Amino acid sequence: MKRIICILSMLLCMAAETVMAARAPVSEATEECLGCHSSIHPGIVEEWQNSRHARITPREALGVTGLARKVSARTVPDYLLPTAVGCAECHTLNAKVHADTFEHNGVSIHLAVSPRDCATCHTEEAVRYSGNLMAHARKNLAANPLYQDLQQQILGRPVRREGKLTFEPPAAETRQSGCFYCHGTRLEVVGMETRDTVLGEMEFPRLSGWPNQGVGRVNTDGSLGSCAACHTRHAFSIEMARKPHTCRECHVGPDVPAYKVYASSKHGNIYAAMNRQWDFSAVPWTVGKDFTAPTCATCHISLVVNTDGQVLARRTHEMSGRLAWRIFGLIYAHPHPMNPDTTRIRNKSGQPLPTDFDGTYAAEYLIDAGEQVRRTETMQAICLGCHSASWVRGHWKRFERTIRETRSDIRAATGIMADIWARGFAKGPDSDDSPFNEAIERTWCDAWLFYANTVRFSAAMAGGGDYSVFADGRYQLSRRIQELNDWLELRNQLFPPTPPIALRGLPEKPYRVQ
Amino acid sequence: MKRIICILSMLLCMAAETVMAARAPVSEATEECLGCHSSIHPGIVEEWQNSRHARITPREALGVTGLARKVSARTVPDYLLPTAVGCAECHTLNAKVHADTFEHNGVSIHLAVSPRDCATCHTEEAVRYSGNLMAHARKNLAANPLYQDLQQQILGRPVRREGKLTFEPPAAETRQSGCFYCHGTRLEVVGMETRDTVLGEMEFPRLSGWPNQGVGRVNTDGSLGSCAACHTRHAFSIEMARKPHTCRECHVGPDVPAYKVYASSKHGNIYAAMNRQWDFSAVPWTVGKDFTAPTCATCHISLVVNTDGQVLARRTHEMSGRLAWRIFGLIYAHPHPMNPDTTRIRNKSGQPLPTDFDGTYAAEYLIDAGEQVRRTETMQAICLGCHSASWVRGHWKRFERTIRETRSDIRAATGIMADIWARGFAKGPDSDDSPFNEAIERTWCDAWLFYANTVRFSAAMAGGGDYSVFADGRYQLSRRIQELNDWLELRNQLFPPTPPIALRGLPEKPYRVQ
Amino acid sequence: MKRIICILSMLLCMAAETVMAARAPVSEATEECLGCHSSIHPGIVEEWQNSRHARITPREALGVTGLARKVSARTVPDYLLPTAVGCAECHTLNAKVHADTFEHNGVSIHLAVSPRDCATCHTEEAVRYSGNLMAHARKNLAANPLYQDLQQQILGRPVRREGKLTFEPPAAETRQSGCFYCHGTRLEVVGMETRDTVLGEMEFPRLSGWPNQGVGRVNTDGSLGSCAACHTRHAFSIEMARKPHTCRECHVGPDVPAYKVYASSKHGNIYAAMNRQWDFSAVPWTVGKDFTAPTCATCHISLVVNTDGQVLARRTHEMSGRLAWRIFGLIYAHPHPMNPDTTRIRNKSGQPLPTDFDGTYAAEYLIDAGEQVRRTETMQAICLGCHSASWVRGHWKRFERTIRETRSDIRAATGIMADIWARGFAKGPDSDDSPFNEAIERTWCDAWLFYANTVRFSAAMAGGGDYSVFADGRYQLSRRIQELNDWLELRNQLFPPTPPIALRGLPEKPYRVQ
Repeated sequence: MKRIICILSMLLCMAAETVMAARAPVSEATEECLGCHSSIHPGIVEEWQNSRHARITPREALGVTGLARKVSARTVPDYLLPTAVGCAECHTLNAKVHADTFEHNGVSIHLAVSPRDCATCHTEEAVRYSGNLMAHARKNLAANPLYQDLQQQILGRPVRREGKLTFEPPAAETRQSGCFYCHGTRLEVVGMETRDTVLGEMEFPRLSGWPNQGVGRVNTDGSLGSCAACHTRHAFSIEMARKPHTCRECHVGPDVPAYKVYASSKHGNIYAAMNRQWDFSAVPWTVGKDFTAPTCATCHISLVVNTDGQVLARRTHEMSGRLAWRIFGLIYAHPHPMNPDTTRIRNKSGQPLPTDFDGTYAAEYLIDAGEQVRRTETMQAICLGCHSASWVRGHWKRFERTIRETRSDIRAATGIMADIWARGFAKGPDSDDSPFNEAIERTWCDAWLFYANTVRFSAAMAGGGDYSVFADGRYQLSRRIQELNDWLELRNQLFPPTPPIALRGLPEKPYRVQ
Repeated sequence: MKRIICILSMLLCMAAETVMAARAPVSEATEECLGCHSSIHPGIVEEWQNSRHARITPREALGVTGLARKVSARTVPDYLLPTAVGCAECHTLNAKVHADTFEHNGVSIHLAVSPRDCATCHTEEAVRYSGNLMAHARKNLAANPLYQDLQQQILGRPVRREGKLTFEPPAAETRQSGCFYCHGTRLEVVGMETRDTVLGEMEFPRLSGWPNQGVGRVNTDGSLGSCAACHTRHAFSIEMARKPHTCRECHVGPDVPAYKVYASSKHGNIYAAMNRQWDFSAVPWTVGKDFTAPTCATCHISLVVNTDGQVLARRTHEMSGRLAWRIFGLIYAHPHPMNPDTTRIRNKSGQPLPTDFDGTYAAEYLIDAGEQVRRTETMQAICLGCHSASWVRGHWKRFERTIRETRSDIRAATGIMADIWARGFAKGPDSDDSPFNEAIERTWCDAWLFYANTVRFSAAMAGGGDYSVFADGRYQLSRRIQELNDWLELRNQLFPPTPPIALRGLPEKPYRVQ
Repeated sequence: MKRIICILSMLLCMAAETVMAARAPVSEATEECLGCHSSIHPGIVEEWQNSRHARITPREALGVTGLARKVSARTVPDYLLPTAVGCAECHTLNAKVHADTFEHNGVSIHLAVSPRDCATCHTEEAVRYSGNLMAHARKNLAANPLYQDLQQQILGRPVRREGKLTFEPPAAETRQSGCFYCHGTRLEVVGMETRDTVLGEMEFPRLSGWPNQGVGRVNTDGSLGSCAACHTRHAFSIEMARKPHTCRECHVGPDVPAYKVYASSKHGNIYAAMNRQWDFSAVPWTVGKDFTAPTCATCHISLVVNTDGQVLARRTHEMSGRLAWRIFGLIYAHPHPMNPDTTRIRNKSGQPLPTDFDGTYAAEYLIDAGEQVRRTETMQAICLGCHSASWVRGHWKRFERTIRETRSDIRAATGIMADIWARGFAKGPDSDDSPFNEAIERTWCDAWLFYANTVRFSAAMAGGGDYSVFADGRYQLSRRIQELNDWLELRNQLFPPTPPIALRGLPEKPYRVQ
């Protein structure tokens, strides 16, 4: 009897595997790729074999109706309709506009697939994403002289001459494994090379900036971003993108501790304890049924419905559509920029910053109060799937209070820093020097770049008391302000001004763009 | 053949789901709640639908005998016996003593369910919990002037006048999203309000301190705590409470790094790698069979038996019953307080602290050596389920050595701090000033609040070498002591005393309660 | 019908469990152990019951052929062949060479099973491991006077006399719960003792250094290491050792943040999201089929094959065989030591260090460029299972650039530190004083011990931008260099040299071994 049951059990398992493994027909071109690459690169080939791209044809995908539909293009080129979305399908798309297109066994392929390629089927996602701050993450960093200064003082090579420490510009590789790892590199063909392969000598383009999957990567077709940043190659799964570990890749440090705060929140607790029972592939994603606590994607991107099938939030790849405030990365929190290209922004002092050093908004470049309300309500519709109106309002009241308070805290910190510059104890913007290249200036940076950020993340995500207080929170924020004061007061005592000057508070021209 | 097996397989799955989803009858009142709220708040309704509360009636639960019984009340009111524990059952309990009771569609309900409500069925758990330090977490913080001073210097708003930096009292919202997020808020009805709902205008009470699930929340019926802090609403599952992610919500920062230390310990490693195969819902919880490494709950709360069904540890919600030492949150480690209300404690200098600034115990308020032995043995009975007596003794010897050594380390740190106050380089308790509002005082705080704590957690939980040494451990502890000395010595050199005074060591009256 | 299906379903589950639980015959001796210990220590007995050791006999294991074979011994003593590998089998092995062997119910057993014992079946693994740096982790720390000095300044007891702070040697227990927790203790029998047990009074050896499972433990048979460090007792599972949580036990702090960096990398993301679907017990381990992203073990230890069954990397327990560079724990990164006993190394100044304070390699003790290439290629063979040659080369270029740059950064930091020593503002090696016992010296230590390490780990493991920049990365590295300069410049201003001396740069004899 036992044997019979065992055999039956195994048969059931095999049957289930067969169902899972059902695959769409593969094009001849892709078949040819697989001929070699399933041996050479088994890891990525197997990832793809288990992916939805290998199990469904665009024709079938286009046949899905209603909210379950994943392909947003109205039509897909005929030749792509009948076969799986395989190697050849993606790596040959738009061959003419890719600078890295080359002949490979008689086929014109390119190495780096871009959002523009993915747009063939996922048009709306690509369009939305291009309006996202993330798509512009590289340029917004690389073309902003103030950020470039900060980058140089962090990544640069230290040189000391006669007691003066300077940081020389960092190497390209350092920038690529540093800031641009997340912000994205620029992919450029810098030549061709011959490589010895198992099939003999072959020619390949040499790409500078490769490898990279940063969210603002500049592709060889000029498009911005890398879908694989979240939909990891070659599975491109919605499941992985919906889990918080994907976001952790770039959102874990003290400058942007979203993952840490989430993991210590009630939401993160529920996720960690219960996610095995959730369905991360369901489209649309039904609150309560498919999951019982939000992940990053739930609040920021996903199409979320209630158990009646009513839409709580529409799918978006333009995350800022649900965000009223920009709470990290800048000296002060501020309403979200209107345009994802932030290099256009100028504060009233003419700097490429969304606020002045005293916190004043560069208001004409930022969304207005009405838009903030609209975005807040878009986000709150998701909260209300589990929480009462008074719960949500109570939470938001604390969050917005925290925005105001951390702005005020950083004004205090910046006031002390400005006095230090005014007394000449450090050389700052007034002296056309970097505000980031001296130890005491970093004390000031810590306050806004790490601790005010963390406090705001904790408030935004109800992330537990620790990240609000003792874990890179208000304890450390108040401490840095105390340290700024301590440092200044010792020097005031040792080197009193002659004649005594009044402390000036915030400088008028805190930083000049060169 | 394949098809038949597939169909059979699906039928089996459906059957299994049916078994899982078997639900107890629902009361008419709860049925009415569900009528609207299953659409309005699908998330929490679905959580409840999958919960044990929806699957068993109190009558059935009272029928469970022996160690498997979860309902500790001897009797439950008759009207509750025949139906599931649903919305109406909990939100209408003890209506008269809840200040937030209001009329809602003809029913008197209250928003915040309290431990006193849960005690209807879970009497012993509620009673035990009320004797727990956690139940008093809010009051112990809010009614201790020394802690209130620390809170203000951390959460307060910085103001700088003529080189002097002070911190003004923090806003209520800041305290709620800060310390009281974990310690618990006070829920108070501050009025009624009309809200536009899908059913038209309705009246609701406005609660200050809402939302909150802190362990020491003061409820609208005067009871203390929130069961949902660990048994997350509305699943109230034992599984989630037994996993370490729940404790992480409040025990993750450098002040109380229990989760981090656990996650890096051998126990945490086994949990992370193997917990999928464990049974987190079994009552009693059998070591070896249901789990092979402890989680937080195993050692601190759960009813644990061996494979013979013998009790290794009885269930408790008064965690201190298994704890001989209090190893975090205070300047020095010390024997556990006898009474969970720590506001009564006075050290020999009259301060509301369990030790003096020199480490002397406020012994009359703390458990004695005999009780420490009893508690240690209660805990060790669990260790012995997997470890030999010599293993356990070796571990404990190191832990108790660490207690003594960190006490001695902090005496050294406090000695330097006292000299700094004595020389007047900082204004401390002797000058009736806060000991927490200057940068150098925070250097001293770091030593005991973060690093001595972390070292002790690492020793207590066999938490790996890193948290003992380089990760907020002894490296940082010794460093802070060096920094205190460095700071003092520079000033001693710059501003020598005239005439030279002897350094005084620890002050006699280190801090006066105002 | 439902009932029938339910019953059938349950029967299937029971059958599956029966298959899982199939056990090998147990020896009489082990049967006797189990007689008592299954009640006394149910946790470890159940772990073993579920282990492969309980399910297969050495005879069956020796019958496995090809890459699937796990027993590397050619022959196993006859008496061990027919029964499971149980309590008695391991705890009686090599009884005569174990100093902790004692009579226990008529059997000569020893408490601590050693790699030499495990070598009875797993010969090659034990031999390889003994050539591993880890096997020597205790001695390399305990017998190096420079490291012992660092240990004392971190773990020692602070004593302050007349403004001078010193750290007295730490207690044995402190070293055991500190550095030696990971590096390994020395197990020594320090006497016998009588203990009251459930079976009456019994004699047991007293072991100093117990408990411990450090990688370089010195065992009672003189062998080095503890297999249980990774193959946790008494499951000894390959599954657990292959998951990254095992490595996290010792590789999580800022000095060696491998786990943190991994968890935030693309590889760690895939692991966290998808590992439920992987097979962690398969031998050999097939990329793509059994797993789709590497864990620590994949790259550093495991036997990895492609889907054609071709070997990408052979199993090793000598991790350095895949490592060209040693990137943590020392002042400068450098080529791996040739010999795992690093106490033999002397730099050109005669110190027991693989480089001088100026970074110069102690080249005769380190592997040469050819060996570095071989090791790099061994590692890259695994990368190439999923990545193209250009991807791998791009990654490596950045990694090696980071090696060079952090060496240069630390030269700059050490130059400032040397000037501080030269000016007499701190007492360093030139004055025969510890380079680790003053606050400013720790600023220098942070730069190389924490931040340069973290930057290198991030580059080595493609670990995301945060650990490269803001999370203990280049931001903090550059900051520490700024702090060193700031500290020195204030003192240069306050105490100018008379007559002015030239700053000397790196000292000639930076540290003398006493």
